Amino acid sequence: MKALLAWWEGLCTGSKVLRFADLNLRGIGQVMFQDNPLSGLLFFIAIAWGSFAAGMPQVAIGGLVAVVAGTLTAQWLRVDASGLAAGLYGYNAYLVGLAFGTFLGVSPLWWIYVVLAGAVSVPVTLAIANVFKSWGVAALTAPFVLTTWLFLLATYAFAAIEGSGLPMAAEITPIDPAAANPLAFGDFVLGVLKSITQVFLKASVLAALLLLAGLAVNSIAAAAFAVGGAIVAVATAHVLGAESDLITGGLMGFSPVLTAVALGAVFYKPGLRVALYALVATVFTVIVQGAMNVAISPFGIPTLTAPFVLASWFFLLPRQHFE
Amino acid sequence: MKALLAWWEGLCTGSKVLRFADLNLRGIGQVMFQDNPLSGLLFFIAIAWGSFAAGMPQVAIGGLVAVVAGTLTAQWLRVDASGLAAGLYGYNAYLVGLAFGTFLGVSPLWWIYVVLAGAVSVPVTLAIANVFKSWGVAALTAPFVLTTWLFLLATYAFAAIEGSGLPMAAEITPIDPAAANPLAFGDFVLGVLKSITQVFLKASVLAALLLLAGLAVNSIAAAAFAVGGAIVAVATAHVLGAESDLITGGLMGFSPVLTAVALGAVFYKPGLRVALYALVATVFTVIVQGAMNVAISPFGIPTLTAPFVLASWFFLLPRQHFE
Amino acid sequence: MKALLAWWEGLCTGSKVLRFADLNLRGIGQVMFQDNPLSGLLFFIAIAWGSFAAGMPQVAIGGLVAVVAGTLTAQWLRVDASGLAAGLYGYNAYLVGLAFGTFLGVSPLWWIYVVLAGAVSVPVTLAIANVFKSWGVAALTAPFVLTTWLFLLATYAFAAIEGSGLPMAAEITPIDPAAANPLAFGDFVLGVLKSITQVFLKASVLAALLLLAGLAVNSIAAAAFAVGGAIVAVATAHVLGAESDLITGGLMGFSPVLTAVALGAVFYKPGLRVALYALVATVFTVIVQGAMNVAISPFGIPTLTAPFVLASWFFLLPRQHFE
Repeated sequence: MKALLAWWEGLCTGSKVLRFADLNLRGIGQVMFQDNPLSGLLFFIAIAWGSFAAGMPQVAIGGLVAVVAGTLTAQWLRVDASGLAAGLYGYNAYLVGLAFGTFLGVSPLWWIYVVLAGAVSVPVTLAIANVFKSWGVAALTAPFVLTTWLFLLATYAFAAIEGSGLPMAAEITPIDPAAANPLAFGDFVLGVLKSITQVFLKASVLAALLLLAGLAVNSIAAAAFAVGGAIVAVATAHVLGAESDLITGGLMGFSPVLTAVALGAVFYKPGLRVALYALVATVFTVIVQGAMNVAISPFGIPTLTAPFVLASWFFLLPRQHFE
Repeated sequence: MKALLAWWEGLCTGSKVLRFADLNLRGIGQVMFQDNPLSGLLFFIAIAWGSFAAGMPQVAIGGLVAVVAGTLTAQWLRVDASGLAAGLYGYNAYLVGLAFGTFLGVSPLWWIYVVLAGAVSVPVTLAIANVFKSWGVAALTAPFVLTTWLFLLATYAFAAIEGSGLPMAAEITPIDPAAANPLAFGDFVLGVLKSITQVFLKASVLAALLLLAGLAVNSIAAAAFAVGGAIVAVATAHVLGAESDLITGGLMGFSPVLTAVALGAVFYKPGLRVALYALVATVFTVIVQGAMNVAISPFGIPTLTAPFVLASWFFLLPRQHFE
Repeated sequence: MKALLAWWEGLCTGSKVLRFADLNLRGIGQVMFQDNPLSGLLFFIAIAWGSFAAGMPQVAIGGLVAVVAGTLTAQWLRVDASGLAAGLYGYNAYLVGLAFGTFLGVSPLWWIYVVLAGAVSVPVTLAIANVFKSWGVAALTAPFVLTTWLFLLATYAFAAIEGSGLPMAAEITPIDPAAANPLAFGDFVLGVLKSITQVFLKASVLAALLLLAGLAVNSIAAAAFAVGGAIVAVATAHVLGAESDLITGGLMGFSPVLTAVALGAVFYKPGLRVALYALVATVFTVIVQGAMNVAISPFGIPTLTAPFVLASWFFLLPRQHFE
């Protein structure tokens, strides 16, 4: 693996085009915290597969266009070289593009919307990163969440952009207490795997396996915490009585998966105390997911990964206490 | 009083169990900013009385379970010793437990919910305290408010947790102009006393007197500002035409009471200029209470002490200008 | 022009009354970032004209009362002398007063409401300025937005304050795709000019010309970016299919105008790269305006200049990258 990456790095040093591809692949890898072009490539293939198989090529294409727009913007803004090289100005743009492909109808203006939002995600990333640097904490996917929320909300105000895939604005009502059905083993496995792919806004079993491979080539611990986090999330959501469709579709688990990986394998040194801390944070993220599903429903937009961002900030900001 | 506290401190030095009790009592005392185990004990008795007298023992019990969970979590996280000794990692947990007893139906899962939220309130406290330390301002009860909001909102998404005591989600409409009835003297006194107990989510006259005693044993100024703040709040709310039921139930006054004590007797040195500043802040908190009652109504959750937190941060962040 | 200002400065040095008038005029000038009493005077005349011509003298009078209350409060709080002299503690108060005249019905309590909110806007300004000073960014009009939102929301809870001019709370629904009519040249010009006056909550062509004169006497660049920003905003909103009435009334453009002036001519050194950056930020502000029109609709309050504040913070916080 190391030889492969060294060979690739050698190629990139000699070619501006390959270096640019490298930056974008690392940007895609950073969606799950991996500064590794091979992880990024596997993630990209996973999403492309899930997107085309579902008859929605605009998801994969939107992601690609947005991440390129984001990387070009970062270069134009002359951001710090190390952050750029690590893909830190690409993952939010990539997610923005996936979201636009998922929730908006394609039209000529859609392309401009994707490029503009991919570009705007870069100053938003810089802004949020600057603020949270004060406390030694990363921006996580907050720039993606905020940029996408604003552009999606705006579609209700603009007739030329069609928000065909958006949830309708709804009043808050308690869910049907009968919703918690017994959870069969097959559904459990499905919920776990789809919790992992929903990080990229897709529900696909094959994509889940490719994503896990992409994690494992760079960090076995990250892959383990992703699976562990998904299992904890699905079990917790089931015990609490969340709607079964949400659970098996992976929609209660994608934010907890990110929390588990972030706390268990990325921002703290792995260990028993950290694993327990990450476990509590993961369970808490399921509750935050439930809370935000409710709180956001009058606005007709999805939570995206906001539950992950909020819960992880709460568990990362006390940082010094684990070092 | 000093001799009594010295005797108690001596006992605690020799016993781990008593020291643990001391930490929790100080945690309860910090709900109204008093780092004093006797204040905490009187507050605890007041709430226990109000809770059992109202046929809702789960309020007092929930508070007790949560504050113990919070203190144990703080010890496990090895938080700073001085903050722990002063009860700074207990008051948010205690309030979370009172809120869960007030707004949720008791079930086996309820106990886990209380323990989990009490524990989670500690990293949330550390997170918010770290952020606001940058500007020399305390976290106040923001960790309680945020943790409780998230867990309460989530009950709408989870069939296994019953939010039986939650307000219904409602559209925003102006209140009936007939709502402001003349306020009789008895109702005025009732509104003042209940404004003080509602700090702990309870409406009880006897509890109010015990709470004032708990304040007075540690700080006469704090007790005076609590009464003064309550009087100002009830009068202001009445003049502005708030609903009479809210006023006499103490629901317009508990946040202003906390603002008055915090600004007048805790975070600034008492004095004439500070008293005037605290007066304006207290009146402003009544308006923020009205605003948040409205803004939060589509979400079906209570404001808790968010108006106090917001208004007090606005009046504490310019800190340097009073020193 | 310089001689005129020097003569006025000489007069002020000798007279406390004139100095006080100077502070308030500069406060009004700072609504569009101009630390210049003549700009403030022209802005004041523009708003007074628009206000009386529309049969709503309470707008101009509310602004005047509030800015005086704010300046007196700032003096009582002994804020920093240079900020006070530059009018930084006046512009939020002035805007609060204009908003209360626009959205609330006049009654005896209205006057107290205006004075109280004008005074409260000063600690809120200090609080937000302190926080954002950490990252070298200004408070912009955030204190105005937050103070006004709270006082306006509260009118739904208080029978004695009448929110007669407030928008009705509404559920979120996509706008009619037929809304984007062809935009005639006259309407285009009207939309541009009213986008400039709506910064002060008024729609008036003559006022727009006076406001541009007020900008030009202190900064030709600021006047140019105001016109340019308005043109970009009206064109963008039209292409995106915003409701034509909102566009021609200036309601899609006033926040983008502020963004264009702030980024293009005030907080960054003017230049080609900065102009392009300001252009993207201005287009983005139109989208944020659309988004916030939607997000805020369930609450029955106007966005005020929140889209400007949010978008500009996102484009100002990465500051170092343009220096």
